[in-house]
Amino acid sequence: MTNSDRPASELASSQFNPSEWVIDGNESIALSIHIKGDRLFKEDSPYQTVEVFDTYGNGKMLTIDRMVMCTEADEASYHEMIAHVPMQTHPSVKDVLVIGAGDGGTIRELVRYPGIERVTMVEIDEAVVRASKQFLPTISSAFNHPKLNLLIDDGIKFVKEAADASYDLVIIDSSDPVGPSEGLFTKSFYEDVYRCLRTGGVVTVQSESPSYNPKAFIELNQCLKQVFGSDRVHCYLVFIPMYPTGMWSLTYCSKQGPHPIENFDYNKATQFAKEHDLHYYNADVHKAAFCLPTYVQKMING
Amino acid sequence: MTNSDRPASELASSQFNPSEWVIDGNESIALSIHIKGDRLFKEDSPYQTVEVFDTYGNGKMLTIDRMVMCTEADEASYHEMIAHVPMQTHPSVKDVLVIGAGDGGTIRELVRYPGIERVTMVEIDEAVVRASKQFLPTISSAFNHPKLNLLIDDGIKFVKEAADASYDLVIIDSSDPVGPSEGLFTKSFYEDVYRCLRTGGVVTVQSESPSYNPKAFIELNQCLKQVFGSDRVHCYLVFIPMYPTGMWSLTYCSKQGPHPIENFDYNKATQFAKEHDLHYYNADVHKAAFCLPTYVQKMING
Repeated sequence: MTNSDRPASELASSQFNPSEWVIDGNESIALSIHIKGDRLFKEDSPYQTVEVFDTYGNGKMLTIDRMVMCTEADEASYHEMIAHVPMQTHPSVKDVLVIGAGDGGTIRELVRYPGIERVTMVEIDEAVVRASKQFLPTISSAFNHPKLNLLIDDGIKFVKEAADASYDLVIIDSSDPVGPSEGLFTKSFYEDVYRCLRTGGVVTVQSESPSYNPKAFIELNQCLKQVFGSDRVHCYLVFIPMYPTGMWSLTYCSKQGPHPIENFDYNKATQFAKEHDLHYYNADVHKAAFCLPTYVQKMING
Repeated sequence: MTNSDRPASELASSQFNPSEWVIDGNESIALSIHIKGDRLFKEDSPYQTVEVFDTYGNGKMLTIDRMVMCTEADEASYHEMIAHVPMQTHPSVKDVLVIGAGDGGTIRELVRYPGIERVTMVEIDEAVVRASKQFLPTISSAFNHPKLNLLIDDGIKFVKEAADASYDLVIIDSSDPVGPSEGLFTKSFYEDVYRCLRTGGVVTVQSESPSYNPKAFIELNQCLKQVFGSDRVHCYLVFIPMYPTGMWSLTYCSKQGPHPIENFDYNKATQFAKEHDLHYYNADVHKAAFCLPTYVQKMING
């Protein structure tokens, strides 16, 4: 084993040129991804700044307002865990609503299921979809799938106007609670989501990081418990090395639906993960992800 | 919820002044911790540069060659998981050997167990111990414990000369495989560790990050399997937000000893964690930590 496995960081520190890195941080901690060559895409859309970069070792990377959304190397962890945890728990999903998810990774995972009849995806910013189609083909590969109905529209307005009890699964795959995603972190939004779910229906939500943005994590958990009932809200954790601090949460909720551990079919999930050669998700990880470190439990259980 | 929960990173990027941050990175990804005020401690020991900083929001921080060793805010995750996983698995640990661990956090966790009779700790660099005693009192609180025998010495030499079958538990709590820790990542070192373990004895090892330094992670796993036998080596993962990428591994091995899931006492671990008001470790997390994402399984199972 040689020193080249992990350069002493004195090296990085003295040579660190911020202009060569995308820096995603707050006032105490930052993640930086080294970018290679010229920026591939930049657009100031009506909502946000959408950019695509090439990186050293992590493939192409999508950022919104310079926050890392995904890299080719790592995106499967997030997309598999937000899609397969509910899909392996609910026994018969036919109608899915996806809010956000403009890069396409979540729908790529959903269309693996022949039982799904329709996926309605509502993304507010067509620039994200366009950037992903052009530069992230392995992530955006399902945009032409016949089951997909892609709407460029405001997800908050969409769920407000959606018919009652129309979906078996709703996935809220939002960016962070700044800019256009801020309204996706409110009680009135989740009341609409609840209403448009069928009884027995399930939801997964990108629910921020207990270590990086604890306030948003706690507030969203409280909001979900108010809407779904506290015994129907289950937080789970995923290792996402490309997000600041690497510890990210998703939250599974249901409308009087199945419990994500007690009612999930271990053998079916094992077979599915193997068949599809998944990157991160497997049946053991499904169960393990809900086992939270004690300090995270305390954050959400008061 | 307001934007202040997560400042858009454009802010950090344009204002990022590398001299105000400790940057722990490689050529593709870096973690930065914002430092507050003047450096509290710096010493170029015969082995490495040892420093202590204050930080914004993460308490005091120990670095070696500018690699983050621990912060007060987060150190318990690592120290609990390296100590309690073996201690809650082996039924009767009396003699413990700890290599490295100069900050003292690992021995603070070990002295919670009345059944332990002796802890021998071998740290090569007394500057680490001194810095921790002076600036990290909550981490170094067990250095005066009557069961502790602290030796400032070379751990590699120590295990080479140690008597056969003298320990029930050996913990290798090293820094990364550069500088003085490099020899802790070799087969001959682990052959000595194996020899000085009692039959039924167990080992935990700081085994690097599958996401940040995959080569070191894979090579160390292979080395451990050669020495302990492949069915006696069990990798587990911990969320460590203060290490680059946040995804870190520890590895449990045994000399024909107990299996860390099949032979661990769930109820006893639950009671212990509650009694000691642990920060991260609980019985569910103990089991869950061994459930690896598929891509991590593939890295070590070939």
